Amino acid sequence: MGSLIDPTGTAFLLVENRSMPMHVGGLQLFEKPAGAGRGYGREMYESMRDVDEIAPLFLKRPHRSLSTAAQLTWVEDEQFDIDHHIRHSALPQPGRIRELLDLSGRLHGTRLAWERPLWEAHVIEGLRDGRVALYTKVHHALVDGISAMRLVQSTLSPDPDLREMPPPWDARTRRDRPRPPKQDAETSLTEIPTQALRSALGITAEAAGMPGALIKTITKGVRNETSALSLYAPRTIFNQKITGSRRFAAQDWPIERLHAIGKATGTTINDVVLAMCGGAVRRYLLEVDALPETSLVAMVPIGLKAKESHIASTEGGNAVGSVMCQLGTDLEDPADRLTVIHAAMQDGKEALSTMTPLQIMAMSALGQAPAIAAPMLRMSGLVRPPYNLIISNVPGPRATQYWNGAKLVGHYPLSIPINGMALNITCISYDGNLGFGLIGCRRTVPHLQRLLTHLDDEVTALEKAAGV
Amino acid sequence: MGSLIDPTGTAFLLVENRSMPMHVGGLQLFEKPAGAGRGYGREMYESMRDVDEIAPLFLKRPHRSLSTAAQLTWVEDEQFDIDHHIRHSALPQPGRIRELLDLSGRLHGTRLAWERPLWEAHVIEGLRDGRVALYTKVHHALVDGISAMRLVQSTLSPDPDLREMPPPWDARTRRDRPRPPKQDAETSLTEIPTQALRSALGITAEAAGMPGALIKTITKGVRNETSALSLYAPRTIFNQKITGSRRFAAQDWPIERLHAIGKATGTTINDVVLAMCGGAVRRYLLEVDALPETSLVAMVPIGLKAKESHIASTEGGNAVGSVMCQLGTDLEDPADRLTVIHAAMQDGKEALSTMTPLQIMAMSALGQAPAIAAPMLRMSGLVRPPYNLIISNVPGPRATQYWNGAKLVGHYPLSIPINGMALNITCISYDGNLGFGLIGCRRTVPHLQRLLTHLDDEVTALEKAAGV
Repeated sequence: MGSLIDPTGTAFLLVENRSMPMHVGGLQLFEKPAGAGRGYGREMYESMRDVDEIAPLFLKRPHRSLSTAAQLTWVEDEQFDIDHHIRHSALPQPGRIRELLDLSGRLHGTRLAWERPLWEAHVIEGLRDGRVALYTKVHHALVDGISAMRLVQSTLSPDPDLREMPPPWDARTRRDRPRPPKQDAETSLTEIPTQALRSALGITAEAAGMPGALIKTITKGVRNETSALSLYAPRTIFNQKITGSRRFAAQDWPIERLHAIGKATGTTINDVVLAMCGGAVRRYLLEVDALPETSLVAMVPIGLKAKESHIASTEGGNAVGSVMCQLGTDLEDPADRLTVIHAAMQDGKEALSTMTPLQIMAMSALGQAPAIAAPMLRMSGLVRPPYNLIISNVPGPRATQYWNGAKLVGHYPLSIPINGMALNITCISYDGNLGFGLIGCRRTVPHLQRLLTHLDDEVTALEKAAGV
Repeated sequence: MGSLIDPTGTAFLLVENRSMPMHVGGLQLFEKPAGAGRGYGREMYESMRDVDEIAPLFLKRPHRSLSTAAQLTWVEDEQFDIDHHIRHSALPQPGRIRELLDLSGRLHGTRLAWERPLWEAHVIEGLRDGRVALYTKVHHALVDGISAMRLVQSTLSPDPDLREMPPPWDARTRRDRPRPPKQDAETSLTEIPTQALRSALGITAEAAGMPGALIKTITKGVRNETSALSLYAPRTIFNQKITGSRRFAAQDWPIERLHAIGKATGTTINDVVLAMCGGAVRRYLLEVDALPETSLVAMVPIGLKAKESHIASTEGGNAVGSVMCQLGTDLEDPADRLTVIHAAMQDGKEALSTMTPLQIMAMSALGQAPAIAAPMLRMSGLVRPPYNLIISNVPGPRATQYWNGAKLVGHYPLSIPINGMALNITCISYDGNLGFGLIGCRRTVPHLQRLLTHLDDEVTALEKAAGV
């Protein structure tokens, strides 16, 4: 009668409550194929719904079994109803991106009921430019955010003429399609040895020496490990208890623009992304008169090459570490902020390379599952939040992708705000653009969408500072 | 810390599961006021959302309190988020009534989470004729179906020029508006003495002599109370375990047409409604080759005048009884069916008048809350279902109604299918029309929408039979 849910999945299910739904989401924008008419939204919906065989991942639901001493098990939903999971929706007038983001935020704020398999997909029409959107949500107990994105991507193709392509929940998706070839370490966040993450969740912070490890990843400017004041992130409005209301904001920027800034300043694209976020958050907090005197600290998950991570070789994959990066929000000049961030990221990566395998595993857990890891790791002695927000940058496909002839023109992630971490920024690169997905508690982070304007202003400011 | 939820409310909450959400719904269609533009849906949404003070009924959520020995209490939702409860939605192309019914069925099939107050309202635009719809759902633990309709109606006005009208959840709705004057017994189903219903749920069937009482309401044709075979309803596909999937169908018929049939045949409008339903169900079951040899029996809740109900006077209101009405589905001729139904209803009402107050109360419970009452009453010895489906006919306002200038042009109820009772038909009269709302389990009652065509064919057949 069903298989036991592993401890990490169980933890994601049990930590969940109305204020913290534990699902990851994705919003994809498609252009209709040439010649498609007004009924295309329905056609897409029907081809996503009319699937002969659903993959097992999408058929199972959690069940608290009496026969397994109240442990959670996965059981197949015997009343599986595809119409509950695949929905056909439309935007109200005037059908702008704003209405799409409103709907996505609303869908993302509703918890998945345990009574059914833990996923939904919504085909959304009614954008006034004729594009069709797909919002998907999957519980973190089933897949992590990166795997969810990868799952969606695995159903796409660079071939615009390909048809009969299955959706992610089609059993054919896994059987017929080869896994994409391994790429360089940067693109291999999805290859995290799951076992490592799972082990880490069983390790206390002290056993792993986590406070020291966290400190190591904070910039060189902070050397005195006994001076708690200078070590940890300041309190901000982002670091409060959250509610279940969500606001979502999303926008693309051309990677070429970020690349030009990086090239002119000797920094990486990821540094530029962090500088954009740092500057935007600074502007946002200034507007609401809530900018702390000391710099905000972001937790930045990064992929580690096998040789850097010690543990990777035994697991046959790569690991994820986390750098605690000062964002320079205390500095007025965008160029100064970029310099600080670049140094912080370099120091952080260096520090990661000196960490023990146990610490690396604990950092992986923190980077992958902060909602579980942060409380479980119980970072003793850390009276302030060790970081203020999470900023992730995930590589996506470089070539233009299609699903049954519909061109993917945008892809934006929706991650998981948690108590004490009300704002999450996740970016995904695709086809020459970097898509930013900002998700936050609507109450704790009011007017979250203003961050988009601030991000845009920061790109311009950084270009000016870099002389490009 | 909150007030205990009364036993009936608790029962509705506890009997609920994924297959049987216990909320009642309503779908209303509005015509835009003159001069309103494409943005009218948003205006209506905003005026429903932007409420200064929410009425207490709409602020409370169930809570299982440790301090009250795990009894359920109502607590105020301290994180109340109006955006969770009032939604702005749109229909996909081509925006026909069919798409509206699909969306309504989908919304009706989703259970309300206990984590929040147990109601939702969806302003739905995108109908190609420019009308705007409102789907509302409220948990049966808060209000019964008739009270829910009455609550919605209490916010309407026959004055098309009235503005600043509050929605049902606005605290002003209850404070400022006088209760509508009492009308004749037919229109007073809402005045059921709640206490009577509550008491009845505590009474066992045997104590109340229910099997005998049920039998009394079945037609004169069945006199031998010891012959179980002839007493009870036949098994049908409607009387199975249900799933959580819902299909909703709705349509209006002019009361004048039904009235003309009744006048020509010496029957009531309610008899004609039952004959329409009986004929439609017969056609439906014939199509799927599942028509039983003996007639289906409908449970028909009816309002009882004070003098008929014995108990009414002490409670200051009227009671609801239930008549078990043979629908004549075994008869080919529509005229014969109408004759049988008319006799069955007359006999049933007569039988009700001979029942004891305790039996009346038990019948009220059965008519008002079959999901709770049927199992609780444990009708000993009834090995078959005592009835096959519930058909209710509820009087609504006779005059054209408006909400802030928007004309109400249709009103359709969505009731609660339960295990063993997969189809429910509820009608509401309004402004010269009778609006039928048919709700069923999509799996147990496939192609439910075909019943609309059959209902329409039955009106024509009855007109022909009656010579009108």
